[in-house]
Order: sequence, then C-alpha cells, then structure tokens
Amino acid sequence: MNDDDCRIVTLTTDFGQKDPYVGVVKGIILSRCPQALIVDLNHEIPPFDILAGAWSLKISLPYFKAGTIHIAVVDPRVGTTQRRIALELHEGIILAPDNGLLTPFITSAKKAYALEKPQFFLQSVSRTFHARDVFAPVAARLLSGTALRDLAMEVDKHSLVTIEGLEPKEEAGSIEGMIVYVDRYGNLITNLSAETKSKIKEIRIGSRVLKLASGSYGTIDDGEAQVLCGSHGYLEIAAREASAQNLLQVKSGEKVIVTTV
Amino acid sequence: MNDDDCRIVTLTTDFGQKDPYVGVVKGIILSRCPQALIVDLNHEIPPFDILAGAWSLKISLPYFKAGTIHIAVVDPRVGTTQRRIALELHEGIILAPDNGLLTPFITSAKKAYALEKPQFFLQSVSRTFHARDVFAPVAARLLSGTALRDLAMEVDKHSLVTIEGLEPKEEAGSIEGMIVYVDRYGNLITNLSAETKSKIKEIRIGSRVLKLASGSYGTIDDGEAQVLCGSHGYLEIAAREASAQNLLQVKSGEKVIVTTV
Amino acid sequence: MNDDDCRIVTLTTDFGQKDPYVGVVKGIILSRCPQALIVDLNHEIPPFDILAGAWSLKISLPYFKAGTIHIAVVDPRVGTTQRRIALELHEGIILAPDNGLLTPFITSAKKAYALEKPQFFLQSVSRTFHARDVFAPVAARLLSGTALRDLAMEVDKHSLVTIEGLEPKEEAGSIEGMIVYVDRYGNLITNLSAETKSKIKEIRIGSRVLKLASGSYGTIDDGEAQVLCGSHGYLEIAAREASAQNLLQVKSGEKVIVTTV
Repeated sequence: MNDDDCRIVTLTTDFGQKDPYVGVVKGIILSRCPQALIVDLNHEIPPFDILAGAWSLKISLPYFKAGTIHIAVVDPRVGTTQRRIALELHEGIILAPDNGLLTPFITSAKKAYALEKPQFFLQSVSRTFHARDVFAPVAARLLSGTALRDLAMEVDKHSLVTIEGLEPKEEAGSIEGMIVYVDRYGNLITNLSAETKSKIKEIRIGSRVLKLASGSYGTIDDGEAQVLCGSHGYLEIAAREASAQNLLQVKSGEKVIVTTV
Repeated sequence: MNDDDCRIVTLTTDFGQKDPYVGVVKGIILSRCPQALIVDLNHEIPPFDILAGAWSLKISLPYFKAGTIHIAVVDPRVGTTQRRIALELHEGIILAPDNGLLTPFITSAKKAYALEKPQFFLQSVSRTFHARDVFAPVAARLLSGTALRDLAMEVDKHSLVTIEGLEPKEEAGSIEGMIVYVDRYGNLITNLSAETKSKIKEIRIGSRVLKLASGSYGTIDDGEAQVLCGSHGYLEIAAREASAQNLLQVKSGEKVIVTTV
Repeated sequence: MNDDDCRIVTLTTDFGQKDPYVGVVKGIILSRCPQALIVDLNHEIPPFDILAGAWSLKISLPYFKAGTIHIAVVDPRVGTTQRRIALELHEGIILAPDNGLLTPFITSAKKAYALEKPQFFLQSVSRTFHARDVFAPVAARLLSGTALRDLAMEVDKHSLVTIEGLEPKEEAGSIEGMIVYVDRYGNLITNLSAETKSKIKEIRIGSRVLKLASGSYGTIDDGEAQVLCGSHGYLEIAAREASAQNLLQVKSGEKVIVTTV
C-alpha cells in the first residue's frame, strides 16, 4: 500500500440490503481488524450486471485516498473455476472476481495477483459466497499489514478478463457511446466524458435526437430528456424533477450516437 | 464545537441508497479525517421534499451529543445562486443549503455562516453535487479542528430561508396542524406535540373525525386509523399492523384540525 | 464479555431504512461510546416476522467474534408487559424482547437477564421505541465495560419465550422442514441443514417434488426451482438467475417434506 495510514475498505456488490449478507462480510472484516473503516459504496448493482458494477467503481474510486482497499462482487459465475483477483493500483487495491469488473483499472494497474492461498481464507469456503469467505479475510490481512505478494500469486495483468462498453468508440465524424448506468432518479449515465459536449453536432438514441441542456437540472425544458454534464464527469441524459428513463423508455446498454462538429 | 471529543457526522439526504453517491461522500470525509464516525440518519427523504427533510432533522438531532456535525442535503435548486450554510447550534453544527431545511433550528441557533471559501472545497466543484464537493470537505475540516469562523463568513441567521408547516397554528378554540412525515409503516406523523393530546376535544383530517387510541399501537381498534403519541414526541395517526396512509388515503402536507377543550 | 477488545455492536430489526429510526439508535450508542463499531446486520426483517428475525440471527452470529453485542428488535408487542432480555452467550450478548427472537440461542446460552433497571435507560422511555430507549443505552454501557450482572437481573433462561419452526422434526423415514427465510433473490431458505442432503430420497413442497441441483446456482436447470446447499449451511430452493419464490408461489412458513433413504 502507498499509505500505511489508510484503513478504508469499500464494498460494491449486487447483494442488496434486505438480507444479512453484507453485515456478515463486515463482521468478518471487523472481527479480524477492528481498525477498519468500512464504506458501503453500492449494494444495489443490478443482479449480475458486471458493466454497471465496473462503471460504479470507475466513477467512485477517484474520491478515495491512496491505500484504500475496494471489494467488488458482482458474480454470476461464482462457484466455477474463475479466478479471484487482487489488482494493485497506484491508488489502492481492488479485490474482485476475474469476470470483467476490473476492466477500467487494468491499463493503469501496477500488478495483478490471483487469490489462491486457502490459508488466508475462512476455514471452509462455500461455493457461492466468496465476499465472505475469500475477499473479507484477505482485506483484513491487507489492512493488518500483510503484503499482497505474501497473500497471493502474481499473474499477468493482461490475462484478466475484460468487458466491452466502458469506452466509447471514436471514428472520423462520430462517436459511439453507451448508457452504462441508470441511477435512482432515472438519469441515464453515458460513457461519454464531459469534454465530449463541446464536440457535439448532433446526439441521439436510436432515431431520437436529444437537446443539450444549457446548465444543470433546473435548465432542462419541462417534460423533456436532455443531455448535460453529470457530477461524475460524464454526459448524462436527465429530465427536470422526472425520470429520463421513463420518458425515453430505454435502458442500460443502449447506444448513444454523437455526430461531431 | 462544544465538545472536542465528538467525532460524529450524520447524513440526511434524498439520495437514496441504490447508487454510489452516499459512499463517495463518506470517502471524502474518511479520507481526510479517518477518526470520523459517520451515521446515516436518512437517505430516503422523498426527492425534493424539504419539509420532510426538516422534520427528520428536527426529531433526530436531539439524540446526538454536543459537537456532532450534521450534513443535510435535500436540494431541488442545487446549481443556482442559493447559499450553502453552516448553522452553529449549542448542540453541534448543521451544514445545509439555504432553502428552508434549517427552519427548525434557526431560532435557537448561536450563529450562521455562509460557505463561500473555495479553498476548503474539492478542487473542482460540480454544479450538482455539493454534498461531495462542499459539505463533505468542510465537515472533515471541522472534525479536524478548524474553527467554523475560519472556514466560512458569518451571516445574519435571520437572513436564512424558512419554510412553513413545521409549527402548528394556534387560535382560540382550535389548533391547525399538518402531516409532516409518513414513515415506512404508513404512520402519519403530525407537527402536533404530544402535550396537545390532553387538549383535544375533536381531531379531524378533512371531514373525517379521528379517535384517540388509549395507549400504543396494540390498543388501536382493528381496521381503524387512530391518534396516539409517537416515540418522537409528536402525535401520529396510526393503524394496527397496517398502514394509516393506505386507510385514510392522505399524504404529507394534509391539515389536521384540533378543536380544543 | 469473553473478549475485552471487542467493540462490535450489530443491529437486526424490522425498522427498514427509509426513516431516521436506525440512525437515532446509532446516535445513542456512539454518543455514549465513540469506540463502538456498529454493523447493520439486517433492517429488512419483514415487519413483525419473529421467525425470520430469529433465523437471520442464527445464520449470521457465528461470523462475529467473541464479545460482540447484538441488538435484535422485531417487536409486534412493544409497549406491553413483555420483558426485555440480555442473553449471555459464550460468543457474546444478545439484547432483544422476550418474544421468541432468542429461540436459537437459549439452549447453549450461559445466562439470561431481564433489563429492568431504568437508571440505565434513556431518561424518558417511550412505549414504542425500546431499541432507542433501552437497548442502545444498555449496549453502550456494556461496551464501556459495565458488567451485565450490574445492569440487569438474572432470570432463568428456560423462562424465555420460544417459537416453533427453527428446527425440523425428524421421524423414522421422514423429516419435516420449513421455509424460514426468503432472500432478495427469491431463494427459499429452509431449516434443513446441509447434511440433510445426503439423506434425501425425495423432497417436496406440498405435492410438488423438487430436484436436487448437482452444484451451485449455475448447475440448476433453466426455469426450474431446485434444492442446493446455501452458503449459510442450510438447504435452499433456488432458481438460475431467477426467483424460486416466483416460480413456486410459496412463502415463508411453508412445509418442506423429506423422505429419507
């Protein structure tokens, strides 16, 4: 870790909040490392939606200090032979299954490790709850000062599974973006950076052309879904005190096409 | 702060809990001030419902010790020229937009300050996420021991925006109250203090006269919505293992009229 | 307490997360004992469902270290003469109403105490919010080092209220189990231990015979609800990326009948 002082562990999962699953993960961490500061980042990733999980991590992690440990579990294939990874960044460490969740961080990562030393896991590892049985005890070890290289086997970071959709595709005259996340307000968040806005000649979803809002939410015309720069640094399609998702009837994964000036 | 020992920061917002927004606010606070003890008071204020937000603060803050810092964000007008306020109470400090959320606390407050020194905010302040960009870093500064007067400009507390509805209106022979909050059970919480109960000759919503329950929830007649003293110290209209809101089909803002003895 | 180092307090309630009630409980604990580490175990126990609450405790508590204090409140009869109990386990202490929530822990408990010394409660105890007024201040006292015997009156642990349904009934040739909890994915969790699986000749709900899945969720046949060993150590009825509850249209309390080999 870059910063021996950091005691923060974040959690990003699709576990929801109506069962004791998240609390048990916290119990493991705090029982082994009472100085941990656990932050719930997101437990409402849509079940099995790896793209939304990767996106939630991408826009959240920059706000945490160096040395933070992030546990991320959206894992439809839990119980298969898929690897469990610790990705060492300049800004911290992410623990996650090797299923694409780590895609936004691989290029800049320092090193990748596979978690395959059972002596650092819970005594009996279930087939379906690796957050509790693998990631939580490993996070507690890391916080307690054990080096990652002692807990796991280094692997080639380019061997990690990646997913499509996190980066827009640029061509001469156009950019193909995508809706990558829908928030509680029904804002449709795209993978197009805020800087894209100045290059837009036309922006559309399917055949529908969208207007650019002049400022923040209050400047959107009533009953319309328009494009603005979200607080996360990406373009989003939003409505004024209403849900853009309901207005447009589109969902995550939908393409957003920009014709550039 | 009255109590240098207090490290508690509470959060009251309408952000919901399905996105990483709340977690990022916590990341800012804990990254800058690891000794902070963050308590989620309420993230499910109905979007843009300033009255419900003010009420939730009013009934919750008395249970926190002196020196606690409270962040409150229900902010339909974020991104406009509205001020961001730090209100210094005898019991702590509330950070909130100047939109009426602070109404219950102004009379007894010691001093009010406007947060307008960008050197204490995140480096780039977005137009729409002041909890993260303004209130979180200021809270971390306060917890770390910086005095409020060094972080903000004192303003006249009587210049703050206030809202109606938090206090009942008393006249000879009658009191006009209001439903100010509906909780998860469908209990309709009024702004009438528990002491009002002994003065009631008749209490009604619209044309419907309500009965007084003799004790707690278990004493309410089946299938009826009746009036009792809630644990928060105010009268509420409740049903027995059922939702008074569903039974009466009324909502927040509805008047509750008492004829006094 | 077995372990003077433990500062963890867990919360299991049916309060939900849309109101400030849980936050206020935390405020009481942290105001009186800032070193407390509070873990939300479950706030979404279905209202008044004591069996689900007892089950959630049963499968969660083993993951916490010795000395942990657990507050559990699912309390349809709050405000009656029902006792408030502190149950001393080898692994910690549970604070709960005497209504059956403690059933899974009575046999192995060391001692039981009734909380009836008002000097350790909030100054004015409401009739309906004992988590805030009784259990939170008592938990803070325990964490601060006061002995349980000084806070409460010892009572016979066999005098505590118990509920049915947590243990299956075994007869020659058959075991009668029950669905005790439904999680967010719609998995139907039974009270049949994982070891039961090897004894199953036939397993059914009502007249419907269920298949045994060969491994974890991914091995379940599409569109079917099948039986597997959950990560909590009990048999559950699950579907593949779908809700077994929706498929079978059954709910908590339903019997699950095993014919043994």
